[in-house]
Order: sequence, then C-alpha cells, then structure tokens
Amino acid sequence: MSEEPVGGDLSRLRQLNASAVLRELRGDQPLTLTELSKRTGLSRASTEDVARDLLGRGWLAEVAPASGSVGRPARRYRFNAGAGRLLGVDIGGHKALALVTDLDGEVLNQTRITVDPEAGRRERLAVMDRCVAKALAGAGVEAGQIWSTGVATTGLVDGSGKVMLSDSLPEWSGVDLAAHVRRLVPGPVRVENDCKLAALAETWRGVARYAKDVVFLLAGLRTGAGLIIDGKLHRGFANWSGEIGALPAAGWLQAPKHLESWLENASTSAGFESVFLAAREGDRDATRAVRGYVRDLAVGASALVLTLDPQLVVIGGGFSRSADVMVEPLRRELDRWCLRTPEIRVSAFADEGVALGAVRLALDEVEATIRTGLRP
Amino acid sequence: MSEEPVGGDLSRLRQLNASAVLRELRGDQPLTLTELSKRTGLSRASTEDVARDLLGRGWLAEVAPASGSVGRPARRYRFNAGAGRLLGVDIGGHKALALVTDLDGEVLNQTRITVDPEAGRRERLAVMDRCVAKALAGAGVEAGQIWSTGVATTGLVDGSGKVMLSDSLPEWSGVDLAAHVRRLVPGPVRVENDCKLAALAETWRGVARYAKDVVFLLAGLRTGAGLIIDGKLHRGFANWSGEIGALPAAGWLQAPKHLESWLENASTSAGFESVFLAAREGDRDATRAVRGYVRDLAVGASALVLTLDPQLVVIGGGFSRSADVMVEPLRRELDRWCLRTPEIRVSAFADEGVALGAVRLALDEVEATIRTGLRP
Repeated sequence: MSEEPVGGDLSRLRQLNASAVLRELRGDQPLTLTELSKRTGLSRASTEDVARDLLGRGWLAEVAPASGSVGRPARRYRFNAGAGRLLGVDIGGHKALALVTDLDGEVLNQTRITVDPEAGRRERLAVMDRCVAKALAGAGVEAGQIWSTGVATTGLVDGSGKVMLSDSLPEWSGVDLAAHVRRLVPGPVRVENDCKLAALAETWRGVARYAKDVVFLLAGLRTGAGLIIDGKLHRGFANWSGEIGALPAAGWLQAPKHLESWLENASTSAGFESVFLAAREGDRDATRAVRGYVRDLAVGASALVLTLDPQLVVIGGGFSRSADVMVEPLRRELDRWCLRTPEIRVSAFADEGVALGAVRLALDEVEATIRTGLRP
Repeated sequence: MSEEPVGGDLSRLRQLNASAVLRELRGDQPLTLTELSKRTGLSRASTEDVARDLLGRGWLAEVAPASGSVGRPARRYRFNAGAGRLLGVDIGGHKALALVTDLDGEVLNQTRITVDPEAGRRERLAVMDRCVAKALAGAGVEAGQIWSTGVATTGLVDGSGKVMLSDSLPEWSGVDLAAHVRRLVPGPVRVENDCKLAALAETWRGVARYAKDVVFLLAGLRTGAGLIIDGKLHRGFANWSGEIGALPAAGWLQAPKHLESWLENASTSAGFESVFLAAREGDRDATRAVRGYVRDLAVGASALVLTLDPQLVVIGGGFSRSADVMVEPLRRELDRWCLRTPEIRVSAFADEGVALGAVRLALDEVEATIRTGLRP
C-alpha cells in the first residue's frame, strides 16, 4: 500500500472505520449505505463519510442500483478490485512464472520463461526479473501499481524471505529473494516455499476449497509436501514443516529411482512422462517402475496421513498429469498403511498452481492491512 | 451445568451479560464493579445486577478490599472456582485414575486403582466406576456437584465418545464410554484418546506451557503421540491423528522388542524399568537394548518432527522416568534425521498427566458454556 493511487493522511479512527467498511465489501454482494451502516455499526453519517473518501481513493466503486425497487433506488457500493494489482512469482529449477492479478486475484497476465536447471544464481535471478517485467508489460501495469507481491521458491525459506537451504539448487541457498524482488516492485514482498504455496492455492482456487485439513503432495522431479491445518497453511516453528522427504525411511529419496532406472534401460532421452506414457500403454516394465515409485511415495504419504488424519490428499506437481496411472495404485498403498485413507484428488492446475499460491500470499498481506487499518 | 446449585431462569440477555462478566473474572485479578463495567462495556447498573445474581448463584465471591485505598474501598469480585467440581478420568490397560478438581482445575482428590491388563470390558468398567466413586468420596463431593467430566482412554475415540479401535485392549473396542460415564455423573461428558489428552495436559500444566506447536511422545509399554498445533489439540478429520505408529517404517511397532529381548535373555520377571536400571548401571547389553529402542522410536519421532517442525518434543509415558538414559541418545538420533532438532523436554507428571488432560477437556466444556452463554 506504499503506492496508494490517491494520497492523503487518514486519522487512526477513520482508518479503522474504513477498514470496517472494506471488510464488509470484500464479500461478493454490493451493499447500500444503510446496509453498510448496519453491518459495521457505524453511524449513517460516518458511513457516508468513509464511503466518499474510499470512492475518492478508488477503493470503492458504485454499482448500478438494483432494479425493481420502489422509489429512488439506493446507491450500492462494492470493493474495487481494480484499485491495485498483485504480483505472484514462482521461481524454481526449470522455470520462472509470474502472474499479475487484480485485488480479487483475477489473473491479468501469466508469463512463463524456461530456466536451465544448471543456471547459476545470477542467471536465474535475471530470468526471474525478465519474467516479472514481461508479465507487468503484458498486463499493461506499471511496477508502481503493484500493492503486494508473493514469491514462491524451491527450498526452505526463513521469516525474512531468504532461502536457507535448497537441495535441488545448491547455488540458490542463501539468496535474499525478498530483498531482490523489493528492487523490482514497491509494497510488501513475502517469500515462501513452493510446496507450501501450492497447498495454499489448492484451498483457495483449487480442488481443496472445501477442506480444512489437507496434505498436498508435490509429485514430480522433486517430491515435497505442504500442509493445511484447520484451514491455515501450517509453517512450523522455523517454517520447516512438510519436510518428511528428508527421512530415508519415508521412501521419497529413493522413489524417483524406479523411474530413472526404466529411462536408463529404455535408453531414451525423453523425460519422465515417457515412463507414465509407456505404463499407460501397458508396458510391463514401465508399469512396474510406476508401481515402485508409487510404493515409495506412499510410505511418506502414509506417514503424513497417519500423523495428521487429513480430510483430503491432493496430488500436484509434474507427475500429477499422469494421475490416471498413479492414483489407483497410490490409493491401494495408502489403504495398506493408513487407518483411514482420506479422499485423494488430483490438482486441476497446469503449472501455475504455485504462482497462484504466491498471489494468495500477496493478497493475505493486503487483507491483513485492511483488517488492522489502512496504511496512509 | 445441568445441576446448578442455585436454580432460576436467566433471560438470554442476562445470560450474555453474565457470560461477559464471568469471562473477565476468569483471570487471576479480582475486579471492582467499576472495572468490570469498563471491561465488559455493560452499564454500571447492569453490571451490578449481574454481579448480584452471580453472587447469589455462588459463581462469584467477594474479595477483601484492597488496602491502602483512600475513602471507602470498593468491593472486588473474583470467579468462585468452588462453585462447581470437575471430574477427570483416565482408564487404560493397567489402571484407572480419577481426579476431582475445582473449576480452576485444582486437584481435590486423586484416586488410582490397578486393573489387570487381561481384565474384560465389564471388569474394567467396574474398576473405573469404583475409582470414580472413591475419588468423589475422598473429595467430599456428591456426583451432583460435578459440572463437567473428561474421560481419557486408550484407543481411538469417535466424536460421540465411543472407543472405535483399541489395539492394546481388543475387548475395549466398541465400548460407549460417554454413555457409561453419564450414568455416574450429571453434566456433559467428553471422551478422548489418552495420548491426545496427555499432550493437552503438558501445554496446560506441564513442561510445554510456553509452546504453540508440540509433539508429545508417549514412550512406554505402548508408543503413541499427541499433537498440539497452533496452541490447540490437533484431532484430525476423524479424530485419528498422531497414529504414525501404525506405519511399520516408523519403527514403533518393533521398538519395544529390543527391551523385551533383553528381559528374555536376563530371564527376569521384573518390568521394563529393569532394562533402564541395568543400562544406567553400565550393563552393555542393556545399554544396547535401550539404544535399539531409542533408534526405532526416533524414526517415527523424526517423521513427526519433519512433518510439523514443532517448537518442542515432550517425552512422557512410563519410560520417561528413565529419561536420564534415554534423552541424549534420542537427541542424537533426531539430529541424524531432522533438519532442525527441536528442544526435548521430559514430562514432569508422574502418572496423572493423562487424567489432568481429561480435567482440561472438562474445563474446556465449562469455558465454552461461559463463552456462549450460561445454561439455565
């Protein structure tokens, strides 16, 4: 909010009143001043005062009066999701993906640039910068219009937005992503681990919308997990939750080896999809390789399920596109180990899920600001 | 609250006012009517009205005026924890333990009766009934004075207070504990798994008071876990959380076998404590057996830690009395597998921790009632 389009100081009380009005208008329904006054508990005069001010700042928009009302219809107001823009960035081993959205999270532009997994830190950051610039240009948005930014990255992230440890990209450990992105856009920048944000995206816009306790499994070149507990992203004491894969007994370290062996024997230069493709076509060795992969994946997944007893397990990541050959074997393995096998769903996102979670993180920041009072 | 000592209907509004006053007085500080009026937002007259009523019902008590005040000192009031009684019961394989407390959870009587692990369901229930009757008599309390009851049991419990599944006591599966205990005492009866309640007790009165994310490990004849997440007991979708022990890869199924083998070789009829005793005295085989036990325990414990990244691990259960020979090896094993080894603390409870958790469950019920309005 450091680049608010229309300036001017708000007293603390007016800030709180404005927050109360905005909170009510974050719902889908436009409201009249009378309704707003009733819901916020503010006097009619204060409500009018606040609404006029927020209209001037562009935060509210007037909606055409409801038809069919008798007499002069009352004006209705809604939150103006177009007042500002959000940026969500996913930077990983193989790609940078940036989303520019409005304040409701509606995507205005999605830009994806491939990165060489072998790229060094500087090169990877440069690709990310290009990706952000292209997404902004594609959405017709100036950097200054971005109110809040979320960044998803591979690796463990500390509270300040620095990457603490990345197994898959060792040169990435130690990069201060928050500081780097703050040079590109104004406003708050929050950084979070990609599995955690993928989980968040599933509860926000994905297949886990109805569930309060969710285990999200990233099944792909890496295996990872993100946890939603009691409707909230579970981070843990040092933000290192979901790392069951580090435990050899959980099977995730060795899981991809079944697929790698098949690729070696088939001496193909094709990607992992080819194993799933071959399994789908009935190749016995490929089927065996997929089963082996799922068997190992299921041990760690069962550990998560037995620990948390979630309502739902969501499978995402690159291999989730081969869900048709993976989900039934996985369910059978979970049945083998779990006291209660939860529902299993496959992510409906292509590869934008993680970046959408980053947008949700940026939106959390905006909503927290609305809740606690607007910054001038 | 179905057996309130002083009867009479409260209108809904008066109930809410009374709830507001009681909520404020649940803190440690006695308050004057002026302070109560300010904190609750009620008028002075309403506050006086409510206070008089609650005094009459025995819910409030007057405290001697603060000394040193100028003029006539104002009367101060506190919550009367003696207005009602709570009952906490722990029924397990080897014992029944009952606590009778006041509404602050201060223990008035603790009664323990040993049960034969081979006892049938009826016999075990009869011992529990005797234990409750003895605890009530010991506290000089009539069953009718019990406002709320918590029951801890081995096994998985459903939402209605029925034991769904007990591995250690197969004959116990299916027993409707809530219905049974309701025949003994009036008021609400809640039933919960013993590991979960032990975890709750640690955050309430034990070594985990300061922590928001806690893994409680029950290390004893059985191995189990209870999870506190974000300051609350984590139950899971079907109340089956913490059951990592069911996964063979977690090591808990085989962990006690190291100790059993030592006991067999030593051909002693002494209990498990003798292994720890021998290890403490430097017996090499016993030390090896304890290490083997800890090594297996640590795999499942690491799975919990890597999943949740808790601030604290608390070791409870019978073997926790041998913490001096167990904690350091456990810490080393956790260091081996975990990305971040949390602080490890040993429960300070003897064997009343689980029953204390049951009291906390009973108290939750009373406080929920105070929050949402008193029942007449």
